[in-house]
Amino acid sequence: MNEHIPSKMKVAIMNQPLDIEIKEVDVPTISDSEALVKVMAVGVCGSDVHYYEHGRIGNFRVENPLILGHECAGIVVQVGKNVKHVKPGDRVAIEPGVPCGHCEYCKTGAYNLCPDVRFLATPPIDGAFAQYICHPADFLFPIPDSLSYEEAALNEPFSVGIHACQRIGLQPGTTVVIMGMGPVGLMAVVAAKAFGAKQIIVADLEPLRLQAAIHLGASHAVNIKEADPVQKIMELTGGKGAEYAFETAGNPTALQSALSSLKAGGKLAIVGLPQQDLIGFNVPFISDHEIDIYGIFRYANTYPLGIDILSSRIADVKSLLTDFYSLDQTQDALERARTNKSGSLKVIVYPNAITDTP
Amino acid sequence: MNEHIPSKMKVAIMNQPLDIEIKEVDVPTISDSEALVKVMAVGVCGSDVHYYEHGRIGNFRVENPLILGHECAGIVVQVGKNVKHVKPGDRVAIEPGVPCGHCEYCKTGAYNLCPDVRFLATPPIDGAFAQYICHPADFLFPIPDSLSYEEAALNEPFSVGIHACQRIGLQPGTTVVIMGMGPVGLMAVVAAKAFGAKQIIVADLEPLRLQAAIHLGASHAVNIKEADPVQKIMELTGGKGAEYAFETAGNPTALQSALSSLKAGGKLAIVGLPQQDLIGFNVPFISDHEIDIYGIFRYANTYPLGIDILSSRIADVKSLLTDFYSLDQTQDALERARTNKSGSLKVIVYPNAITDTP
Amino acid sequence: MNEHIPSKMKVAIMNQPLDIEIKEVDVPTISDSEALVKVMAVGVCGSDVHYYEHGRIGNFRVENPLILGHECAGIVVQVGKNVKHVKPGDRVAIEPGVPCGHCEYCKTGAYNLCPDVRFLATPPIDGAFAQYICHPADFLFPIPDSLSYEEAALNEPFSVGIHACQRIGLQPGTTVVIMGMGPVGLMAVVAAKAFGAKQIIVADLEPLRLQAAIHLGASHAVNIKEADPVQKIMELTGGKGAEYAFETAGNPTALQSALSSLKAGGKLAIVGLPQQDLIGFNVPFISDHEIDIYGIFRYANTYPLGIDILSSRIADVKSLLTDFYSLDQTQDALERARTNKSGSLKVIVYPNAITDTP
Amino acid sequence: MNEHIPSKMKVAIMNQPLDIEIKEVDVPTISDSEALVKVMAVGVCGSDVHYYEHGRIGNFRVENPLILGHECAGIVVQVGKNVKHVKPGDRVAIEPGVPCGHCEYCKTGAYNLCPDVRFLATPPIDGAFAQYICHPADFLFPIPDSLSYEEAALNEPFSVGIHACQRIGLQPGTTVVIMGMGPVGLMAVVAAKAFGAKQIIVADLEPLRLQAAIHLGASHAVNIKEADPVQKIMELTGGKGAEYAFETAGNPTALQSALSSLKAGGKLAIVGLPQQDLIGFNVPFISDHEIDIYGIFRYANTYPLGIDILSSRIADVKSLLTDFYSLDQTQDALERARTNKSGSLKVIVYPNAITDTP
Repeated sequence: MNEHIPSKMKVAIMNQPLDIEIKEVDVPTISDSEALVKVMAVGVCGSDVHYYEHGRIGNFRVENPLILGHECAGIVVQVGKNVKHVKPGDRVAIEPGVPCGHCEYCKTGAYNLCPDVRFLATPPIDGAFAQYICHPADFLFPIPDSLSYEEAALNEPFSVGIHACQRIGLQPGTTVVIMGMGPVGLMAVVAAKAFGAKQIIVADLEPLRLQAAIHLGASHAVNIKEADPVQKIMELTGGKGAEYAFETAGNPTALQSALSSLKAGGKLAIVGLPQQDLIGFNVPFISDHEIDIYGIFRYANTYPLGIDILSSRIADVKSLLTDFYSLDQTQDALERARTNKSGSLKVIVYPNAITDTP
Repeated sequence: MNEHIPSKMKVAIMNQPLDIEIKEVDVPTISDSEALVKVMAVGVCGSDVHYYEHGRIGNFRVENPLILGHECAGIVVQVGKNVKHVKPGDRVAIEPGVPCGHCEYCKTGAYNLCPDVRFLATPPIDGAFAQYICHPADFLFPIPDSLSYEEAALNEPFSVGIHACQRIGLQPGTTVVIMGMGPVGLMAVVAAKAFGAKQIIVADLEPLRLQAAIHLGASHAVNIKEADPVQKIMELTGGKGAEYAFETAGNPTALQSALSSLKAGGKLAIVGLPQQDLIGFNVPFISDHEIDIYGIFRYANTYPLGIDILSSRIADVKSLLTDFYSLDQTQDALERARTNKSGSLKVIVYPNAITDTP
Repeated sequence: MNEHIPSKMKVAIMNQPLDIEIKEVDVPTISDSEALVKVMAVGVCGSDVHYYEHGRIGNFRVENPLILGHECAGIVVQVGKNVKHVKPGDRVAIEPGVPCGHCEYCKTGAYNLCPDVRFLATPPIDGAFAQYICHPADFLFPIPDSLSYEEAALNEPFSVGIHACQRIGLQPGTTVVIMGMGPVGLMAVVAAKAFGAKQIIVADLEPLRLQAAIHLGASHAVNIKEADPVQKIMELTGGKGAEYAFETAGNPTALQSALSSLKAGGKLAIVGLPQQDLIGFNVPFISDHEIDIYGIFRYANTYPLGIDILSSRIADVKSLLTDFYSLDQTQDALERARTNKSGSLKVIVYPNAITDTP
Repeated sequence: MNEHIPSKMKVAIMNQPLDIEIKEVDVPTISDSEALVKVMAVGVCGSDVHYYEHGRIGNFRVENPLILGHECAGIVVQVGKNVKHVKPGDRVAIEPGVPCGHCEYCKTGAYNLCPDVRFLATPPIDGAFAQYICHPADFLFPIPDSLSYEEAALNEPFSVGIHACQRIGLQPGTTVVIMGMGPVGLMAVVAAKAFGAKQIIVADLEPLRLQAAIHLGASHAVNIKEADPVQKIMELTGGKGAEYAFETAGNPTALQSALSSLKAGGKLAIVGLPQQDLIGFNVPFISDHEIDIYGIFRYANTYPLGIDILSSRIADVKSLLTDFYSLDQTQDALERARTNKSGSLKVIVYPNAITDTP
């Protein structure tokens, strides 16, 4: 492939909260170990919406104009001279976090804990609402023709689910509870299924999300407006409780319900980030039942596995794609994601042409 | 050995809180798989004191007269016909919890989670403040001549520390924080040392306990009345934090400090049982640092290892034995443990003759 | 249910190699913790055939008349007074090995290593070619209505595959090589699939078995008469090699091929028992590639998981059932299994009526 | 510190087997992420001796003149501009293998399996028999003042022992058999002790080495000229066998003995590299006893732990240092190591001044 690389490109840049501007900037120049990727699809993540709305997440503050977007895939158009495993023309999923490669966490394989990680769309690192991005080739992963760019972008939230399954040691034939059916929770359903879970019980308050979960492979969906999820889980497990529970919503009550739904020896993954710091845990329950609790922060080494699982068509993840925008409409995309929580699942922005429509 | 077995024996029985009576009862009769053990030393545990004072712990209520005491060792005087691995004359440590042997937890080796476990001195099961007890031989462990009965009784709280080290996967060369220097915390110091910890930082408010910890092998002792333990731990670890933290006191503040003292990827063992149910945890810290938290409930399969470690003289655990009483003085022993927290470490009751004086 | 229990029953007993006699004997009497099971289906295992032909396997010799058969399922007709989790009328899979419950292996959950295990059809313990057997209720597992007795009998060889997957730590999205497509190898295909393997490459020399493997979910089948399996595996993995390999045939060459098919960091499970003791391993390959090798001996704690997976219809295991005999025809069944290796997969004996025909 | 850096330096270079020449060459120039280290002590390894004698090890052939030596420590004299964690004046242990940082093994923390690792003194990479070497700063580890350069050089073979203990999951209170008491075997004794082994049984045929092992902390030393090691191990374990066995000599008989010395569920680490490829393993023993076998190839992420353990003075490792040479005498040093296996343990070469004499 010998695609012409322009010198200028369009980006959608956030000047301040609620203000996205489309600008023309120079196409970036790659180093020897990097590749230039034409960005073909970007999913809008809850964190993008949060930065867009509030200009910060926890201690991360947007202090200068920032390009958002980190769930992305594209096509390689140029590679540095040291790059061997991808070449121009390769369709790739882009792993957005690039660790330092030198610290103890990087050396031991837990690079998601690298204190110097550069993560797309986490200030001050620009993200992927841009026609091209330059990215270290080590964090680009070729995808098969059968996988669309949008699905490849979903590999980012999927990676969180896979990492949670790996950290928690999910074994086949078990019961998994997943609280919160936003995109991360929904992709966690797919991950739990891929790891062989027998029974996947999900909870949320939005009917659309619960339906989506069932469509992806959840066994039972509990609407927490209508039923107490712990009581329901106990019924569905013959009073035993679940082996595993994931909390993906960052909701204190959901976290407490997730804990209470476990059997003795059960394991809880904390995936969602709550707004508040201190959340009450039932410590005697944790002790008496020898519960394990695992904090989950992003993921490491999950991209190849995620691509393999998505390619195996274990679940119809295209069903999560609900809204589609061009780069010029990035602010509309963020508004849509911000305001339509009961109707939208995953909003996609196309920085170049709209490619695979679902 | 052919020790004469009397038909009657003395026991110290709690009729109601704060009321211990010395009574004469029949020596129990053993079944084919049991042994009769002449009890030589019993340590007074915090749970014994709590039952003695309040008549209950959580949902466990003393509703009928109960014999307390579960940290115990003795000499086998009679064995059932199916018993092979111990014989009359053997000096043994007594593992106080006897699981059902049939449930999924028993079958998978996690028998401490057996819902039908019978545990000495947990109502309605009588304990070891008695001249003889009858016990399933599988839960009797021969001790070498070099180990005293009092040390063998300490194998019970030591087992909690060993189990915590095993659950948490304690690796050599690491920094371990232990909050609370009661007997369980002190024995956890010995366990962490046996597992190869490089630096053991302990915290408590009683100078006597902190000194005892240093004597047993702690690297640094922080008196929480004088210094902020988290700040001190950060200083002692060059700002990095510890790989592991144990909370053994059941104290909410200590639990929060234990969590805050960890580095990214660190692990927290919850050993102490708090009075209250809900304790606030810093969830964003748990997520961002990918902390693992492990509830610890008693122990399983630790007795042989504990005996081996204690026999290796890795630490002078006899230094923990501070007060000594005969069976007739059991109430005095419980009162001593109840009222002298700043001066007593482990109080021992001798149901028969006082044997190994420290 | 109140089925009439007769006082006499028929059994197929091996007087000496190649000589099976149908005899009438007393129906056994159960103890308090046992159940009487009416045996409904028994699979013929390679070990049954080996005892039938040679009168011994390794150090296990048939010195007195012995009832063979250990892959079995039936219906509970009577239970002892301490039995709670099964009742008359329950359809059950029978786990054939009953460990002592007292040794270190039993206490730690590795009860397959119990030196005092009593295993059906392993001399001197009688097996299941009988109308009724008496069995400890802890080793009976209720099956859903949707599962046939024959499938429940297949849970025995399936358990070996599950145990191998668990020991080896099989992760989703990986490539698994399985050498030998006898019933254990075939059921290992199903296990690897349930654990999420992406690519399952199998090898054998019998076309029927290779076809059966593909039908159950293998990705690629290599006929070792036609192709070098290692070369083929390297082609199928882009020259990388597989993450896992299982040898199930007890064949030295297959074992060496299994090892050579692994990538660095790969893991080998030795499932098949070879006739000879010493087999040459390429030790520099093991070292340089940091291969892990796991000996696999039967299984522990796999029955519930196996039933769950089989009930989920992940694979059409009924397709393995090829030959069907009544108890009176037990010798014919053994002869069939002995002489028709290229045409029979699993031969079933029905000690009572023939129930679920496939 | 501002040490003057000369432009020229001396190196001991192997022109061909048995021919070492002292040459003057340019001091190397560092890149931004590297440091220049003045080499203060280099241990002579068996692999150095093998290259010196035969010009090859397996597929690695010395085709051009090569500087040997990879067990080394020194003092940093210059650092590149991106280097932060070491500075001129720091005394450091040098980890000799530098992986690519990009492959799946590097990313997952198993960088010892990196196919593109550059390892000192493995052709064509020059080693440390030189006054200065230039090395990526990430693989330099500061040592405390209390640790001598010679001890820091021993951290290299020690790392192999630590890695074996980590791979095998060595638990406190266990029995470990170590076959072969060369420097790697001897340092494995120290590692097993640091991991809490209760009983360390070693075997060799050189009395000097067996004495050294006892001095370092082995419990029992078996001279294989005088006793059958397996029989002796069985006696010392009450007939049970050991939990773990390490083979460090590359000797087929020792490997078979190591395997036979294990109890059911035991684990074998293959550390030594044999001359021949195929070595006979007792496969039925591996299966029936569910033995795990682990290939060990160098190490990853062990240097900080090794330095910590050596600094803790858990064993008198200085006792292994038996012979001392200047850089000009490098050939004498290699000859000494080659010809005096019954009298020398670790031979040290000092490329600059002789520093810490033991």
